[in-house]
Amino acid sequence: MKLLQQTILDKGTVLPNGVLKVNTFLNHQVDTGLMIEIGKEFANRFADANINKVVTIESSGIAPSFFAAHTLNVPLVFARKKKSLTLKDNVYTSEVFSFTKQEASEITVAKEFLQENDRVLIIDDFLANGQAAQGLIDVVTQAGATVAGIGIVIEKTFQPGRQILEDKGYRVESLARIQSLQNEKITFVEEAVTVTN
Amino acid sequence: MKLLQQTILDKGTVLPNGVLKVNTFLNHQVDTGLMIEIGKEFANRFADANINKVVTIESSGIAPSFFAAHTLNVPLVFARKKKSLTLKDNVYTSEVFSFTKQEASEITVAKEFLQENDRVLIIDDFLANGQAAQGLIDVVTQAGATVAGIGIVIEKTFQPGRQILEDKGYRVESLARIQSLQNEKITFVEEAVTVTN
Repeated sequence: MKLLQQTILDKGTVLPNGVLKVNTFLNHQVDTGLMIEIGKEFANRFADANINKVVTIESSGIAPSFFAAHTLNVPLVFARKKKSLTLKDNVYTSEVFSFTKQEASEITVAKEFLQENDRVLIIDDFLANGQAAQGLIDVVTQAGATVAGIGIVIEKTFQPGRQILEDKGYRVESLARIQSLQNEKITFVEEAVTVTN
Repeated sequence: MKLLQQTILDKGTVLPNGVLKVNTFLNHQVDTGLMIEIGKEFANRFADANINKVVTIESSGIAPSFFAAHTLNVPLVFARKKKSLTLKDNVYTSEVFSFTKQEASEITVAKEFLQENDRVLIIDDFLANGQAAQGLIDVVTQAGATVAGIGIVIEKTFQPGRQILEDKGYRVESLARIQSLQNEKITFVEEAVTVTN
């Protein structure tokens, strides 16, 4: 997705520790116009997947998944990272380790929001080691529902997340695929254009 | 806002402890169509306030403020409830106590996202004791910026939040004003229709 790539180049910064900072448009300050285009792109890529629910994870997943759910005309559910007093029981839970934050957190989704016949599109902001995606897959499958696809805003292709998910048979669509952040320089994967007869 | 009131009546539930649960459309599962109408309504009510930034708090504030920022054509900034390793220094912070969760959390906004000449619309999902709103006011005023208005999705008028904010001179607009949740029944304030010549 060219608009996203250009925004990452223009406004993203790479920290010395290799973290790509996108907090000017994605996960602290939010460019709503860009988020709407991202949402439409996800909806378009998964238009054939009979999605009836979008599931993401708070907080950074909410903005980029908002318009995907809206365009597909299905509910959006965001997993909570911590149980709140108003949720209590009747939740599916899974543990997710964040390498960025160096801490484990429990994600939860209320059982009432996942049904056995659901075909779920999982959306997240980053795919690196695949921890968050696997936690979301875990809660969706606990409900007996189907993960019909995984949509990622920014994929770090030099980390094992995609391989892990594809090895389990999941379809992964990433809107920006980063090949390298070495020397604090952002390089994207050259996307091959596939021509089918 | 009639659509919101009707949705609260149809889909909200009151827990025995007096908590209004709206997680089927607002803060766990999200009705994006309703959120878009809510966002437009905020934008409409504050159209005359020269807003150049919308500030909310993760996670429940993001969905209802998304389209407000988009309609006003200004950036959306969501305060973080905890410092992350990628934010580090250069943040404004304030402490917020949640009566629902019975815990204090620190909210942070990176300094780069608040400037002295900003006119900020603060948006939050609930107004009860006014803790979250006051935390957001605190970070905005630390930056020397102006709080031009406070938009609330659901106000509990039987709690002191609005009075506290109005006593400090802030304009508060709530889209649904709840008079009582007694006996697990939801009653709205009858809104007076003001006719001006």
